[in-house]
Amino acid sequence: MRRPGFSRRAFTTGAAAAALAPAGLAATAVGATAGRASGAPRVSEVKTITLYAEELPDGQAGYGLAPGQATIPGPLLEMYEGDTYEIELVNTMDVAVSLHVHGVNYTIENDGTAHSDSTVAPGESRVYTWTTHAPGEREDGTLIPGSAGYWHYHDHIVGTEHGTGGLQRGLYGPLVVRRQDDVLPDRTFTIVFNDMTVNNLPVGPDFEAALGERVEIVMITHGEFYHTFHLHGHRWVDNRTGLLASADDPSRVIDNKICGPADSFGFQVVAGEGVGPGHWMYHCHVQSHSDMGMGGMLIVTDAAGEAPGDPGHHGAGAAGAGSAHGGAAHHG
Amino acid sequence: MRRPGFSRRAFTTGAAAAALAPAGLAATAVGATAGRASGAPRVSEVKTITLYAEELPDGQAGYGLAPGQATIPGPLLEMYEGDTYEIELVNTMDVAVSLHVHGVNYTIENDGTAHSDSTVAPGESRVYTWTTHAPGEREDGTLIPGSAGYWHYHDHIVGTEHGTGGLQRGLYGPLVVRRQDDVLPDRTFTIVFNDMTVNNLPVGPDFEAALGERVEIVMITHGEFYHTFHLHGHRWVDNRTGLLASADDPSRVIDNKICGPADSFGFQVVAGEGVGPGHWMYHCHVQSHSDMGMGGMLIVTDAAGEAPGDPGHHGAGAAGAGSAHGGAAHHG
Amino acid sequence: MRRPGFSRRAFTTGAAAAALAPAGLAATAVGATAGRASGAPRVSEVKTITLYAEELPDGQAGYGLAPGQATIPGPLLEMYEGDTYEIELVNTMDVAVSLHVHGVNYTIENDGTAHSDSTVAPGESRVYTWTTHAPGEREDGTLIPGSAGYWHYHDHIVGTEHGTGGLQRGLYGPLVVRRQDDVLPDRTFTIVFNDMTVNNLPVGPDFEAALGERVEIVMITHGEFYHTFHLHGHRWVDNRTGLLASADDPSRVIDNKICGPADSFGFQVVAGEGVGPGHWMYHCHVQSHSDMGMGGMLIVTDAAGEAPGDPGHHGAGAAGAGSAHGGAAHHG
Repeated sequence: MRRPGFSRRAFTTGAAAAALAPAGLAATAVGATAGRASGAPRVSEVKTITLYAEELPDGQAGYGLAPGQATIPGPLLEMYEGDTYEIELVNTMDVAVSLHVHGVNYTIENDGTAHSDSTVAPGESRVYTWTTHAPGEREDGTLIPGSAGYWHYHDHIVGTEHGTGGLQRGLYGPLVVRRQDDVLPDRTFTIVFNDMTVNNLPVGPDFEAALGERVEIVMITHGEFYHTFHLHGHRWVDNRTGLLASADDPSRVIDNKICGPADSFGFQVVAGEGVGPGHWMYHCHVQSHSDMGMGGMLIVTDAAGEAPGDPGHHGAGAAGAGSAHGGAAHHG
Repeated sequence: MRRPGFSRRAFTTGAAAAALAPAGLAATAVGATAGRASGAPRVSEVKTITLYAEELPDGQAGYGLAPGQATIPGPLLEMYEGDTYEIELVNTMDVAVSLHVHGVNYTIENDGTAHSDSTVAPGESRVYTWTTHAPGEREDGTLIPGSAGYWHYHDHIVGTEHGTGGLQRGLYGPLVVRRQDDVLPDRTFTIVFNDMTVNNLPVGPDFEAALGERVEIVMITHGEFYHTFHLHGHRWVDNRTGLLASADDPSRVIDNKICGPADSFGFQVVAGEGVGPGHWMYHCHVQSHSDMGMGGMLIVTDAAGEAPGDPGHHGAGAAGAGSAHGGAAHHG
Repeated sequence: MRRPGFSRRAFTTGAAAAALAPAGLAATAVGATAGRASGAPRVSEVKTITLYAEELPDGQAGYGLAPGQATIPGPLLEMYEGDTYEIELVNTMDVAVSLHVHGVNYTIENDGTAHSDSTVAPGESRVYTWTTHAPGEREDGTLIPGSAGYWHYHDHIVGTEHGTGGLQRGLYGPLVVRRQDDVLPDRTFTIVFNDMTVNNLPVGPDFEAALGERVEIVMITHGEFYHTFHLHGHRWVDNRTGLLASADDPSRVIDNKICGPADSFGFQVVAGEGVGPGHWMYHCHVQSHSDMGMGGMLIVTDAAGEAPGDPGHHGAGAAGAGSAHGGAAHHG
């Protein structure tokens, strides 16, 4: 229905870009776009990837799509409704690790939990299968919601049987499941409020987009605390996509949202729409949390590549560029 | 509009079943179904019940439909929009107790609060009247929302004028108000995150359903802390019913939801739909809370009555069967 | 579409009424109503006001529309989608202060933050410009949400670069942006859960309305803690307006809502509808918070001006009349 003319998004800004192969949609983007353009239904795909659970410096850990490439958050995984992921998890760590996913379908053997015996011992590997489906109707006439959503995956065994240690160390990542006609973004950024960090960084990373680009934010919370996610100068719709579904969509428009561990949501904004370029803060609005650095900048640049309001020193509340944090800060 | 062919649900699994007379809808189920099948409007009913506030072992307390039958949570009360409840509360405890309800209509004399002089002294009784209504329209053209919802009732006087002691001890229960055409579940389970317990148990109860059964969860929070409710392998729609209202329903599909004291929501899932049988965890996703036992299992059994992933020891994160907790753990 | 016959609302009950000039809509109400009645589009307006940031007793501070008139919360600012506010902020305090707004459009020079150099030194003033827009459509066919919402403004520099000190002291206020056909209330009350206070009062203020009046609540949270807002005897729709958008609106109807710092929402209820007059409590439902006084009364009076359930002593959980708190407690 809605097909913006934007070309396929670039997944990453900053130095980490080259290392982060966009998983999942890479193979399907052309077909998907063509399918939608022609009105023909998209063909579902089975994607096979390998995910490596790895130790990172300072006791942290992450998932990566190739050896030595682990990041925090892990790689952005994307599917269209109907797709299947077969993910081989290779455990290079010295403790058992697992992969538990939210939102999509999986049998109990793919739960990633101790009681279902679906974790991976050190040095071992295991395939997890995730499936998705489009909206449907049951025989009794009730509707089956589709799998589309802003979901996430994480370890469920490191430290405790709920993966508390794995989450603290960084074993989590975003999963976006799209519906066939969903609007595609130009850039996708993942922001995880994990305890008192953003993406396991003491001060949140910055993200950059050009004025007018369609920016998608995947917002995930983990750990122990509740937070409120606020973005300056932009707002979104508190529904499935973050975009109005129709002129009659009664959903609330917001720029601040309370969230707790394992909550996730996503939305798209047009960078600087109605407000122009600038260094637009995002931050947790719990006052002590923002004061301690739980935030960063959405840097919206003008045609000359400039963005007013540069804090320069990247001091309290602002943040250094994501790329200054070793590339593990953000991606996608 | 949607009328699944399922027979009327069994309210309870486990040993407590016999003791828990399904309140409220027992008398109306046939008429309601027939009314809906024939297209004739359902006739509203006035239901009269007696609720006993009773002491339970270990300092706990509960509401019950007969003397000696108090449970935590209290009995599931159900209404259709338009129904009235006349509830005689008999206070068998040695402190004043009350009945305060969320969601439905009641005059200030039925508020259950100290300032409105609507509490019940020890050894006394009092009738509380709750009324409900279908959606309507005001003279000015604005719409009146119907009473349908996943609500709850609780004490508002034990310990403090906000019932803090009563809630801690277990004086709370679920109330479901249905709209005439709402889909009926096969089983209804109530999960209350009350401080650091589930249904006042240190480790949450398990619930059991057969593959394909329509399971309704009534989720209520009480006490001091925020929580996030997560269910493995199943997801629901974040709207009034938890089911898609139409193919255009823009609501977010979720499997994790932040909640705070006195929040309540409900939803239905088809047990194991798309994922099969298994021991599917539900738990608070605040990491320390789940690690301390705030969770249990939705056990989805196959045709042979088996459910893979049985933790056996019912250790960390899992839970013993509800019936092992003296029958007060859960019910219908 | 919906045009209740109510006359324009009175903004305030209690002694503070005279001091609180209704900002924003004063000039537009007649035109707006006429425009809507005739079906002609309303003409957008540019409103120019001066806001004074002032010290208040006991270390508190507030915004006011005239010197010496600061209140906590600050004045209710109202706009229709399409309107512009040009607000001169005069800083009479001895520290730098600013004005940061949620929900509406502003360039980075109007952000009210340190890094954008948009704060106001002591003794200085600065104009902040806010613009709004009606829903629209982008060239790519996606929809632009309108600015309508229950928003708020606050300091972003006192104490810390996130305004933690300014918020604690009281530098915050409500902003309501209406859509052309939105239903107008008879009374608007603002309730801010700011740390453990309501509107910076240790015990929450009371609000009064006549039976049948359309009461609008603007509910804002600030500070450090999460809360749950509960109102006795009334409920609302968890969507943009708090009113059902249509008979098909799938939104949940609620009477209790979790909220965290900088969250805001609003709704309208018809005072006493279906429940009659009375002293209806509103309170945070986190038990320790309500026990410490985070609540007050919505006093719904009958034709004789009476409201049953008067706590008299205004003790625990109840609250003295707003006007008893020096007029700073609340306003329309």
